[in-house]
Amino acid sequence: MSMRAILGSDPHDTAVTFSEPMAHCVVNCYACAEACTVCADACLSEPTVEELRQSIRRSLDCADICSALAGIASRRTGENMAVLRSLLEACAIACRGCAEECEHHAELHDHCRICADACRDCEAACRGALSPVH
Amino acid sequence: MSMRAILGSDPHDTAVTFSEPMAHCVVNCYACAEACTVCADACLSEPTVEELRQSIRRSLDCADICSALAGIASRRTGENMAVLRSLLEACAIACRGCAEECEHHAELHDHCRICADACRDCEAACRGALSPVH
Amino acid sequence: MSMRAILGSDPHDTAVTFSEPMAHCVVNCYACAEACTVCADACLSEPTVEELRQSIRRSLDCADICSALAGIASRRTGENMAVLRSLLEACAIACRGCAEECEHHAELHDHCRICADACRDCEAACRGALSPVH
Amino acid sequence: MSMRAILGSDPHDTAVTFSEPMAHCVVNCYACAEACTVCADACLSEPTVEELRQSIRRSLDCADICSALAGIASRRTGENMAVLRSLLEACAIACRGCAEECEHHAELHDHCRICADACRDCEAACRGALSPVH
Repeated sequence: MSMRAILGSDPHDTAVTFSEPMAHCVVNCYACAEACTVCADACLSEPTVEELRQSIRRSLDCADICSALAGIASRRTGENMAVLRSLLEACAIACRGCAEECEHHAELHDHCRICADACRDCEAACRGALSPVH
Repeated sequence: MSMRAILGSDPHDTAVTFSEPMAHCVVNCYACAEACTVCADACLSEPTVEELRQSIRRSLDCADICSALAGIASRRTGENMAVLRSLLEACAIACRGCAEECEHHAELHDHCRICADACRDCEAACRGALSPVH
Repeated sequence: MSMRAILGSDPHDTAVTFSEPMAHCVVNCYACAEACTVCADACLSEPTVEELRQSIRRSLDCADICSALAGIASRRTGENMAVLRSLLEACAIACRGCAEECEHHAELHDHCRICADACRDCEAACRGALSPVH
Repeated sequence: MSMRAILGSDPHDTAVTFSEPMAHCVVNCYACAEACTVCADACLSEPTVEELRQSIRRSLDCADICSALAGIASRRTGENMAVLRSLLEACAIACRGCAEECEHHAELHDHCRICADACRDCEAACRGALSPVH
């Protein structure tokens, strides 16, 4: 069962509020939430955990925002555009902040490199969903 | 076990990032998340559910953002202020939008009146947490 | 950025608590959470929403449990096996209950058919993660 | 706006699925989720973070389950009793496991003591909601 097949099952498919960029954003939110969850947990297990506190903090925050956005961006009943726009903006900021921190540790830790990449992808997807008509 | 006692247990208590307005905001986020969850569910059970779709949509979205903010605003390890500020703003917008919708139905439905009140309280608490030093 | 690449970045890869069946379960939890979120929203927009209340209820509940399990099953620091096992069981029950309800509406609504399929897949993935050593 | 006033606004108030023990459980789930979130964050900031990894892990897991249960136990539309019962059981196990771990650190850290207390209260509330008619 692919995420895209699921997204395509909504009867509001043609709605301007759920464009291809928004679907791309939802998929990236789930991937980023998972990358942040795994990275926070992996950082916690590292012998150098004391140096990774900021990375853990930002990963936990980023996962929480990505999860909230995935749900909100998936809904098409009614209208809540001002909320969606402000949360897309907040999520882009969270993803960038987490990526910047994890990039400091990317050479030493694969989980930080992969998390930073997922955050950069998700930041771009949020910006893409914000830009067109939206 | 009161929420305030829990919040007071953090060793970073004096941090500028966790002022009294921020504690007030966290408490209101949980109350608002619950009010929105109950209201969405109660609207779904009403005979007039077709007229309450927008209220359900906005309540579900508001609950998701309030829950994310409650967690993020509770953390004091490291620093993530740009994210916190943008999410406080997004939450204030979500609360106001949900309140405006639920107020249309407040005379007919107690759950909409109580939800609108909780949303107005939470919006004010988000604004209060945004205003001072923050 | 694929979900599997993310899961593979954890330094505890060889841990018995994170077998291939557990990775499969995490991926299915995200897909099922999204399918349930979309289906609940799509049901809410249908002209026959009054007949779809039970489907909406079960989809919202299932999405909440799948999201919690995705996070918990992704963590490998420390040990929390009794919790993981009981939540896998609860999630399998939630998925089965949601699938049974959505299957009643699967001929009429694509989103119910796709949601039921995602729930059946996730139920099987939870059972698979429960069965071996675990 | 008190949590009890919010819970009382639901038109299904008399439903057997939402007894006083269930309302008590919902209130305790929010308090426990917050206590666990604060304790995980406070543990992460301690100089002895390496000894507190298991506490952080269990607190994060417990917060996730409590949050999911708070939402699910608040819904009264339709019926989903098998899911609610299994999640109450999973939450009681998560609360007990987190309490047992945090009690090891309760003398040294106020946040662990308060978290353990909130977990014990929530475990009892889950058991109370499971016991009567339910």
